[in-house]
Amino acid sequence: MSVEVAGTIARVRAWRDGHRRSGARVGFVPTMGALHAGHARLIEHARRGSDQVIVSIFVNPLQFDRKDDLERYPRTLDADVRICEDLGVDLVFAPSIADMYPVEPLCTVTVKKITDGLCGRFRPGHFDGVATVVTKLFEIVGPDVAYFGEKDAQQLAVIRRMVSDLNLGVDIAGVPTVREVDGLAMSSRNVRLSSEERPKALALYQALRAAERAIANGERNARAVERVAAAVIPPDGALRLEYLEVVDPFELQRVDTIDGAVLIAGALWVGNTRLIDNITWEP
Amino acid sequence: MSVEVAGTIARVRAWRDGHRRSGARVGFVPTMGALHAGHARLIEHARRGSDQVIVSIFVNPLQFDRKDDLERYPRTLDADVRICEDLGVDLVFAPSIADMYPVEPLCTVTVKKITDGLCGRFRPGHFDGVATVVTKLFEIVGPDVAYFGEKDAQQLAVIRRMVSDLNLGVDIAGVPTVREVDGLAMSSRNVRLSSEERPKALALYQALRAAERAIANGERNARAVERVAAAVIPPDGALRLEYLEVVDPFELQRVDTIDGAVLIAGALWVGNTRLIDNITWEP
Repeated sequence: MSVEVAGTIARVRAWRDGHRRSGARVGFVPTMGALHAGHARLIEHARRGSDQVIVSIFVNPLQFDRKDDLERYPRTLDADVRICEDLGVDLVFAPSIADMYPVEPLCTVTVKKITDGLCGRFRPGHFDGVATVVTKLFEIVGPDVAYFGEKDAQQLAVIRRMVSDLNLGVDIAGVPTVREVDGLAMSSRNVRLSSEERPKALALYQALRAAERAIANGERNARAVERVAAAVIPPDGALRLEYLEVVDPFELQRVDTIDGAVLIAGALWVGNTRLIDNITWEP
Repeated sequence: MSVEVAGTIARVRAWRDGHRRSGARVGFVPTMGALHAGHARLIEHARRGSDQVIVSIFVNPLQFDRKDDLERYPRTLDADVRICEDLGVDLVFAPSIADMYPVEPLCTVTVKKITDGLCGRFRPGHFDGVATVVTKLFEIVGPDVAYFGEKDAQQLAVIRRMVSDLNLGVDIAGVPTVREVDGLAMSSRNVRLSSEERPKALALYQALRAAERAIANGERNARAVERVAAAVIPPDGALRLEYLEVVDPFELQRVDTIDGAVLIAGALWVGNTRLIDNITWEP
């Protein structure tokens, strides 16, 4: 039996209402498609933690700060649906842009402070687009629990705070980053890397690991840790480190002295592809 | 039997979940208390249109742009609960500020464009506070339908657009303004008017009616209609017209030529009290 692909909001609401009446626990994995092993891990968590699993596939224009990134974002719906089917998903929600934005959207959900640094500094409007579309998806799907990857650490922190501030009544589950054998974090954007760029892309993870080792070896000065990490990125015309920062894991504010758990997060340009990754260090 | 006053979010969610399972239609009237005949009308509409009626009473600090207005806002909880009881309300939700804002809120719901003019121009942040708290209340209460007075026309337009943009899945019912015998729109702030100010406060409604008559008599130039209306406000040191504008009834944009339905809305300061009112004119 093939998985149902719901094309309308009304169909998803009807499905959800039925499960609400029956008391089934609904798990939700929101995605932009181009599913990889990281998404599969999210779906597996949802499958274990819920009675019914719904996956959304929607490339949300609101969260792209660069037009070329939106245009080049990989779209692989047929393959995505097969992956969902193989993983036992109960419903795939694949709305059109007209379903999600039938008129010019005037309403925006914004989370301040948490979005000031890291990616927020370099991607104006990105997290407003994320918070707004995730609110919409939560309202349409009405899940009991929603699953997000820890690779997008700032997104996860933004969504946790949004849910708590707005009383959205959804449990948010963070799922550890899935990595390639060499350590590269799984990302839909990895397919854009050329065969020359692919090995170079590992530099970001190596820099994060160097930061982690420095802290484990006793370095408590966050700026010194950041310098150690940045020095790991080789001088290569194809690589440009956008940021690499040590921040607190909840509100993502820059830390000066490391005296508790910290998030070490970075963004690296590899040619025309922007990759992000992070590690949490705990004492 | 006295009406239950729920003091916690958890209690409201449990009440709502019970009615969701039973399939009861839940009607919601969000208020800031100091209930008057206008609120009673909202509750009567909810009583007729729903199986279960919940009224919230919460003076939301986020939507006050002036500290003195927040401090002077009338608070009459005991009387409000008695009114709810008399009107057959099933649950009163009266949260504390700590219930609604346990930590510094970082997440804001914003509606642009519709909030640029009218009250939005003079009350910075007001409609962000309204949209944010109404989203929170909708998430907590989970109503099928919510009732708002047409007296707060801009608030109603903002909430309608927010619900549609964010897929909140709540029907929004606008209820006509209730007026005193002489025509003054019911408002919680009317109690602040002195006996000298009270008759003067009627000037705003008289100005709106003059605008309506001018349009009915064939005037199609919106600026001319606004001038006719403004001229009705007597030269009196206690009165200051903040705005009186002719706008389209959906996105509340200034209209130049009247060729369809319009909203005529104004704000008048009477001493230290700011009153608003509006009329919709339809061809």
